[in-house]
Amino acid sequence: MKEQRLEQLVNWVKEENLSACFLTSTPNVFYLTGFYTDPHERLLGLLVFPDNEPAIVCPNMEREQVKKSGWTFGIIGYDDTDDPWEKVKEDVEKRNVTIEKLAIEQEHMTVSRFQKLQEIFPQAAFTSAEVKMYELRLTKDEDEVSILREAAKLADFGVEVGVHNIKKGRTEQELVAIIEYELKKKGISQMSFSTMALAGEKTASPHGKPGLDTIQHGDLVLFDLGVVLNGYCSDITRTVAFGDVGEKQQDIYETVLKAQTSTLEICKPGVEIGLIDRTARSIITEKGYGEYFTHRIGHGLGIEVHEYPSMNATNTMKLQKGMAFTVEPGIYKPSVGGVRIEDDILVTESGIEILTSYPKDLQIIKA
Amino acid sequence: MKEQRLEQLVNWVKEENLSACFLTSTPNVFYLTGFYTDPHERLLGLLVFPDNEPAIVCPNMEREQVKKSGWTFGIIGYDDTDDPWEKVKEDVEKRNVTIEKLAIEQEHMTVSRFQKLQEIFPQAAFTSAEVKMYELRLTKDEDEVSILREAAKLADFGVEVGVHNIKKGRTEQELVAIIEYELKKKGISQMSFSTMALAGEKTASPHGKPGLDTIQHGDLVLFDLGVVLNGYCSDITRTVAFGDVGEKQQDIYETVLKAQTSTLEICKPGVEIGLIDRTARSIITEKGYGEYFTHRIGHGLGIEVHEYPSMNATNTMKLQKGMAFTVEPGIYKPSVGGVRIEDDILVTESGIEILTSYPKDLQIIKA
Repeated sequence: MKEQRLEQLVNWVKEENLSACFLTSTPNVFYLTGFYTDPHERLLGLLVFPDNEPAIVCPNMEREQVKKSGWTFGIIGYDDTDDPWEKVKEDVEKRNVTIEKLAIEQEHMTVSRFQKLQEIFPQAAFTSAEVKMYELRLTKDEDEVSILREAAKLADFGVEVGVHNIKKGRTEQELVAIIEYELKKKGISQMSFSTMALAGEKTASPHGKPGLDTIQHGDLVLFDLGVVLNGYCSDITRTVAFGDVGEKQQDIYETVLKAQTSTLEICKPGVEIGLIDRTARSIITEKGYGEYFTHRIGHGLGIEVHEYPSMNATNTMKLQKGMAFTVEPGIYKPSVGGVRIEDDILVTESGIEILTSYPKDLQIIKA
Repeated sequence: MKEQRLEQLVNWVKEENLSACFLTSTPNVFYLTGFYTDPHERLLGLLVFPDNEPAIVCPNMEREQVKKSGWTFGIIGYDDTDDPWEKVKEDVEKRNVTIEKLAIEQEHMTVSRFQKLQEIFPQAAFTSAEVKMYELRLTKDEDEVSILREAAKLADFGVEVGVHNIKKGRTEQELVAIIEYELKKKGISQMSFSTMALAGEKTASPHGKPGLDTIQHGDLVLFDLGVVLNGYCSDITRTVAFGDVGEKQQDIYETVLKAQTSTLEICKPGVEIGLIDRTARSIITEKGYGEYFTHRIGHGLGIEVHEYPSMNATNTMKLQKGMAFTVEPGIYKPSVGGVRIEDDILVTESGIEILTSYPKDLQIIKA
């Protein structure tokens, strides 16, 4: 499938009369080549030409990994003491290519790197490569879908481990440790973001950090986690009750649950993204919690845990088969608590497949 | 200390006759404000003026966290459906400030964000904020040093756990799980990068990934890990032998160890960074392994695990009191194996303090 992706990009480069396309973000390079690396501050790139072999730009010490990933085209390697931009320039000159119109990732490339590009390609005009990359990555192919399914199952498992290990006096951070330990034993090397386990009033912060706070009777306990599997992310949130939580907390729970399930019911090809957000928001607002639902309904999901498109109230894009995203309404009421319920969704021919499947009815863990 | 940092930046903004400075990277915002967040694709920023109160730009849902971090100045909040740039523009207009010269993080800001800035501040000329931020963050103050010391101890502990858990048939990934579990139980919520545990020939890849490969008698086992403690990183590498490794592996080990310890001996204020790299490199080259030492000697260490300055052969900057960095020579010989030994170093008044202290003599774990 990766060969097809690269081919589609080459075709676009030709159609747009580009001299080349220079991709520099880890996810896009991975998507097109299968080579995944976190280059830190070093330059990573993929140069794609209309009529020339593509090349990966990377530190020399990554050469072996590039080859192992199955890349059979060129590699422009550099040492820490080299200027990688000079190496790129030399490579392009060797091809007798003049860079007049170059597509770059404007939402990833930094201003200082852009200045370097302008120096080595003084005749270049620049255009956005994102439009095409968004389009390519928007709908997932079968290879991607089967990985997303597996990744979602592992996220379910993570929540199961978390819920199973709720005990009075245990800290949020201990729950995180246990969840990640069990996932890592299954071969997961990376979570898709810092695992969240929050208890009691801390659930009222949508981006709260697990700490050494201990779980107490009557706490809501919120888990938000995901894994990276073969380069693809999952992302699930569940909230459970430890013993008897109050009526206010239960009302918040039932409202979020209704918003989440009702919203899933409307999702299918052709439905506007904005409507998905507004459906959940109106249910929550009707119950008087509108001001406490402080974020969008969700985000695209794939190689990145938050990727294109943004699932917000004003997005007029329509769902289409193969899109993957999250649906995650939440209510966060200061000094009362917070609830969020999040699933990973895949758009099918006629509806959706809900990839995450951990139960959603309010679970009361015996204290 | 954070108040002093912000004050130093304000003074610089005045000296440079800037209209404002707009910082957008998590580490710099954290350094100056104490507020740490991963904004994903959302805009995070700190606006600093010569004669006006500073303000943090963040999603509205982060407001509470900003206040909890101790920030007492302005907050420019936005919802997911807002255009954050419009909010910034309105805020600046309210202050009756015209942006004519604006310092930005050119090595962090993306081209598309830069275009947004140009739209909202059409009269602006831009300059780099990095020069000043590098200077401020280069030497660590006492608060930072005490955190770095603690973070290094936790890295030592991580290696200790890893070495203690080496067993025939255990996978690299299991070792990673055990190490991170024990650190998370101690309250560590984030590793400074993906923990590395590699065995056998996989050690020959400086950026190899732990997998389901099992440890076997005669393997070198390499650990590279670090923790994030109160926003600061540690980073340690140790390589040990599981049972009898061959002579070739031992020779590589002894060469790296000699290179590492000899290099540490020359470190003190006034010594050129390039010399540090070249010292290790010449020892390794003399023994015939020059081509297998494929990376620089180290990197600056602090809020970021790789930060300014780059410790490479051509850097003419001189060490000064308060600088923190790694010294990590390595030899990676394909199909033989790899060894890297890495310590975290703090430059003192007259020499250095080695923050990591796990033993470095070749440890042979009984098989």
